[in-house]
Amino acid sequence: MSTARDHSVVLLSGGMDSATALALELDRDDQAVTAVSVFYGQRHLRELDSVDALVEHFGVSHVRLDLSGVTRHMGRGGALLHGEDVPEGHYAADNMASTVVPGRNLLFLSAAAALAQSIGAGRVVLGVHSGDHPVYADCRPGFIHHARQVVEASSDNAVSLGAPFLTYSKADIVTTGHQLDVPWHLTRSCYNAGEAHCGRCGTCTERAEAFTLAGVTDPTVYEDPDFWRSVTAPQEV
Amino acid sequence: MSTARDHSVVLLSGGMDSATALALELDRDDQAVTAVSVFYGQRHLRELDSVDALVEHFGVSHVRLDLSGVTRHMGRGGALLHGEDVPEGHYAADNMASTVVPGRNLLFLSAAAALAQSIGAGRVVLGVHSGDHPVYADCRPGFIHHARQVVEASSDNAVSLGAPFLTYSKADIVTTGHQLDVPWHLTRSCYNAGEAHCGRCGTCTERAEAFTLAGVTDPTVYEDPDFWRSVTAPQEV
Repeated sequence: MSTARDHSVVLLSGGMDSATALALELDRDDQAVTAVSVFYGQRHLRELDSVDALVEHFGVSHVRLDLSGVTRHMGRGGALLHGEDVPEGHYAADNMASTVVPGRNLLFLSAAAALAQSIGAGRVVLGVHSGDHPVYADCRPGFIHHARQVVEASSDNAVSLGAPFLTYSKADIVTTGHQLDVPWHLTRSCYNAGEAHCGRCGTCTERAEAFTLAGVTDPTVYEDPDFWRSVTAPQEV
Repeated sequence: MSTARDHSVVLLSGGMDSATALALELDRDDQAVTAVSVFYGQRHLRELDSVDALVEHFGVSHVRLDLSGVTRHMGRGGALLHGEDVPEGHYAADNMASTVVPGRNLLFLSAAAALAQSIGAGRVVLGVHSGDHPVYADCRPGFIHHARQVVEASSDNAVSLGAPFLTYSKADIVTTGHQLDVPWHLTRSCYNAGEAHCGRCGTCTERAEAFTLAGVTDPTVYEDPDFWRSVTAPQEV
């Protein structure tokens, strides 16, 4: 019998992780999937263009939530919102702190969970992975544990939270997505506004490294394709 | 020494509970307070007018967040969003289910916590009380417990959550607010759009009952001032 838990909402950022999470949800039998993206005042909209391309590729329904009515009041939020220079170097380095948008994941997943409950979907899926942990408190296992509990309590157990890549490395996600035929060329990682990926920002270096570690051909066009090799590997936390 | 925890954000709905929570925060020594209200596509804006009047009365800074970019996509959400008739009778009765906006408190407090973190405030205060528990899963102690943990995890312990009335009855709030000189005439409870409180909807009956139980003079103008006496008292859960 079909239940509400057979309908998932996947938070889709346009990046590799959430694209793979979407592919994994669609790979489950008898699974209805709604992709949810968020406009939050991003400096550039290439990641939302990637969302649109992924939604078309996978043929899923899609809702774009607008949280700019919250983020516009946020005095910090750093490089991704307010036009500071995006730092170069590895994602896990100290200088990535300016890419932290405070409370972002909790806000996004709360909005996605509210939407899920309102449309009768029983599950919200996030693509967070272990490489996010050093910089972003709201990507760590402890946060996900509490987020799962609060979403269940908020919805009277109508909605659960899935984070299938919580213990995965970025390379593990490339391996998984490769098996699922994720269209990597449609995904967007770069924090900068150029048409090509810059190759120098945190997400670009992480992306390029992950393809190499996974042994999967990287279709990405980088302005600086070899920069990532010069960057120190992240410290684990 | 002043720390971030000396700056609070109070979620202000324009109702009695959050007005009293605001007064209580302002009663603490050396406490900076920012009131946060939310536009979420309410059917009528009288509660936001009450927010403005309370903000002026207390002389606090105020940020209005706009979450209508989320709620406009919510297919349910009932009487408060979509123009259904607001049910009459006691707040705790079964017919109040149509006033549930799914995931509302989690969404609002996540937005308030994100704002708090971005402005360096160390505490978010909610005015939920025990009378909210029967109908609203996201007002119950279990929810608040998990919400507190997730806000702390999300912010790396920069933001905490306060719910000073979690075990209070509505009458307890009237007693507390009376001692703090809360301007009850500026607060708004009614779910309906009239200038006067209707006296028949769930929040009106709860309001009128609470003043009587607390032995405090009720300054509210109700269209139907005695209706609440005809309504069965709520079942405790």
